[in-house]
Amino acid sequence: MSVETLEEILHPQSVAVIGASANSRSWGYSYTHHLIEYGFRGDIYPVNPNYPEILGIKAYPNLSSVPGTVDYVVSCVPAGDVLSLLAECVQKEVKVVHLYTARFSETGREDAAELEQEILRQARKVGIRLIGPNCMGVYHPEHGLSFGYNLPKEPGPVGMLSQSGGGASGFVRVAANRGIRFSKVISYGNALDLNECDYLEYFAWDPKTQIIAVYIESPREGQRFFDMLRHVTSEKPVIIVKGGRGQAGNRATVSHTASLAGSMNTWEAMITQANAILAANFDELADLAISFSVLPPVRGPRVGIAGGGGGPSVLSADECEEAGLEVVPLPPEIRQELKDKGVSIWDWIGNPVDVSIIGGFGVADLDMLRMMGLNENFDLLIGLINENVMQTLSLPEGIAQRLQGAVGGYKQVKEETGKPLLAIVGDDSSGSDEYGQQNGQLVSEVRSNLIAAGIPFYPTVGRAANAARKLYDYYARKNP
Amino acid sequence: MSVETLEEILHPQSVAVIGASANSRSWGYSYTHHLIEYGFRGDIYPVNPNYPEILGIKAYPNLSSVPGTVDYVVSCVPAGDVLSLLAECVQKEVKVVHLYTARFSETGREDAAELEQEILRQARKVGIRLIGPNCMGVYHPEHGLSFGYNLPKEPGPVGMLSQSGGGASGFVRVAANRGIRFSKVISYGNALDLNECDYLEYFAWDPKTQIIAVYIESPREGQRFFDMLRHVTSEKPVIIVKGGRGQAGNRATVSHTASLAGSMNTWEAMITQANAILAANFDELADLAISFSVLPPVRGPRVGIAGGGGGPSVLSADECEEAGLEVVPLPPEIRQELKDKGVSIWDWIGNPVDVSIIGGFGVADLDMLRMMGLNENFDLLIGLINENVMQTLSLPEGIAQRLQGAVGGYKQVKEETGKPLLAIVGDDSSGSDEYGQQNGQLVSEVRSNLIAAGIPFYPTVGRAANAARKLYDYYARKNP
Repeated sequence: MSVETLEEILHPQSVAVIGASANSRSWGYSYTHHLIEYGFRGDIYPVNPNYPEILGIKAYPNLSSVPGTVDYVVSCVPAGDVLSLLAECVQKEVKVVHLYTARFSETGREDAAELEQEILRQARKVGIRLIGPNCMGVYHPEHGLSFGYNLPKEPGPVGMLSQSGGGASGFVRVAANRGIRFSKVISYGNALDLNECDYLEYFAWDPKTQIIAVYIESPREGQRFFDMLRHVTSEKPVIIVKGGRGQAGNRATVSHTASLAGSMNTWEAMITQANAILAANFDELADLAISFSVLPPVRGPRVGIAGGGGGPSVLSADECEEAGLEVVPLPPEIRQELKDKGVSIWDWIGNPVDVSIIGGFGVADLDMLRMMGLNENFDLLIGLINENVMQTLSLPEGIAQRLQGAVGGYKQVKEETGKPLLAIVGDDSSGSDEYGQQNGQLVSEVRSNLIAAGIPFYPTVGRAANAARKLYDYYARKNP
Repeated sequence: MSVETLEEILHPQSVAVIGASANSRSWGYSYTHHLIEYGFRGDIYPVNPNYPEILGIKAYPNLSSVPGTVDYVVSCVPAGDVLSLLAECVQKEVKVVHLYTARFSETGREDAAELEQEILRQARKVGIRLIGPNCMGVYHPEHGLSFGYNLPKEPGPVGMLSQSGGGASGFVRVAANRGIRFSKVISYGNALDLNECDYLEYFAWDPKTQIIAVYIESPREGQRFFDMLRHVTSEKPVIIVKGGRGQAGNRATVSHTASLAGSMNTWEAMITQANAILAANFDELADLAISFSVLPPVRGPRVGIAGGGGGPSVLSADECEEAGLEVVPLPPEIRQELKDKGVSIWDWIGNPVDVSIIGGFGVADLDMLRMMGLNENFDLLIGLINENVMQTLSLPEGIAQRLQGAVGGYKQVKEETGKPLLAIVGDDSSGSDEYGQQNGQLVSEVRSNLIAAGIPFYPTVGRAANAARKLYDYYARKNP
């Protein structure tokens, strides 16, 4: 397997959807829809004997009747029809078949597993590569391939390989709302032919991919996977969600992708040794992916925090320390600077900066973030952007004004200080009543503005601190 | 301190706001506003020499000029004016002064700490009780007292005492969106006179309070607090967020409420010994408060899970096990039942139930939840309500339909099985684009419906599992 082969496979000039359909609740419909919707510029061939056209495009009764050659085939037909499809693919010089088709070895049935092996033998014999089976396939927005509705059309630096299709598509959607964009996402399911190693090798090479995200339950080639991992991480961070960590999870992986998950202790050791980054779940994967996407390297653990009231500041300090950051005291030179500016509570303000005490004293949370960011005692900054306004004395209109203004100030701090700046935008504040809905819209707006300003946001201080610490560890191990 | 005294204090017949104001950005305005807005039915006396009336209510130049007696005084005047205010309070037979007024010992200044002590001496001499200083005071929706805009007006079973004002008001808002309602919330700041023990004792007695939530940095009377705690928990669960767990947090508590937080190991031991429940932050406090509010007792750790696709099911199993639940295999009698119903994949379905494999086989996630709920091998159920539809093949309209229908089914399962049922409604799915906003509204609607159905929801399986495990531990220790 050379990366060039996969590069070619991922840039088809023509795609046929076998089992295409006009029924909008079928997968044959949605794969055809996506090719149009995401602007695939090559030839699109819906294949189904029951329709003259699908979504306004001429349909063909079978693959053989499609004119010329076909690079890429999406199979939405039942498992029992795949072998005859493969035979047709040979005539059409198909390079790859994405088997959305499922119900093979993952069912635990012997006959299904045998059929799967027979498909592999046939494909190998005729030189056709397989993605899957039992997977969503490829989301490659730059080339017009997608596996889901309403995923971003613009590309970005994150490449992902995922043993889970639902996990991959769910993650792209959730990640999109955090500002994360993707080069390619490959959901590969049972990994019958092409497997995690091929994809990892490809992403390591792919110039469009700067950060690699992985959801894996069990590698088909464990040794090769870890060997490869060690090389990749010196160039690109690799963030791994490992599914099937315990007894029940392990049992579930068998019926999910017919794989055995292996001991988590071994995984942890291997991942750490390779300087890859372990994430517990897709939420943490998103935290890390956006952090690597937009933050400058985190060069140390010393954090300056501002924006919360008294109690939230205390808890912010706790959560940062528990995540392995150092919440250093304000250094004398910052106290002196405050004193020089006539801030009478220069000796009372601390880190975290409690915004409930500074009102009316001529210093704001943004001033404090700036001072800490410019000071050599701080490696990174965490700002609670809506914590203080949520508990404000103002009426809701006042909250809106202050929130809308906040992002501009954050952007200035980020640019002036050059330090990693992580924003906290609480999630749980939007509710179903009128106020909650207003607030939900406001929070949405603030998030969009933060994304546009290149500032990552997190729902809690604990999650931001955890991401920051993992970035710090990654960079420290990479360049000790 | 008798609970009757506090009961009387919390049910005033007249309230004066000293430093009331027509400036909507002042606290004197907002406390006056809240009395009207939340329907306080006694006499309201705004006090400020500069206004003839405030918010349509006659204002008085000083407390002495208010007619008759005054039960409850909110002080929004500067620290230096509190002693003379106390003198006026004596004439008016004031029972309690809530000192919103701050900048006392928490500033670290000796003169401010001395003034605070003098205020205590004067108050004790004349028999006036103090809430605070440096606090938001009382939210008692049933009686028309509030400390924030847009907090729920209807009461509920949770009583809260909080050393942090911002924490308390932020929490009430966040909790409201989860369906949590409060009997009373008392933010008590520096705890100069009435302290955490008085409030805990009150909530232990208060027939309106079934669950007690606590945010505390440091008790004024540690031994009394823990002695009391041991008694309370046999009647009512007590959930505690401890602020100031580490070095920096401890430093921050000094400037926040002039208290020293103490060793976290001691706290953990004491809390466990008392069968109280430790929560890491306000999010976990909300998880636990809603769980205790609406779930029946969790009698064991064996969980049935349904609603996620393949990868999310695997991770759900992992997160449940990591939280201390047991993800038991499907028992033979459920397999037999599936077989009898003609479900051909009776041997493939597992727990967690992977919804991506069951479509078209005559069994739905709700059927599986019902079967597990009715089976003696399961102590509780977790259902992923929007996980499966987020990754669905349907167009967005299809998602809306399915989500809107889901809650009704959950309610049936809850009622038929009688087992604790926890719903997962993902948070991060709402975004700033059109689809994201639609989805955000939909999620809001689903949450409202769940609240109405008495089903608690959580943003992740991990958080639900953690809450369930802590409930199980509480009930197991309470009735071993």
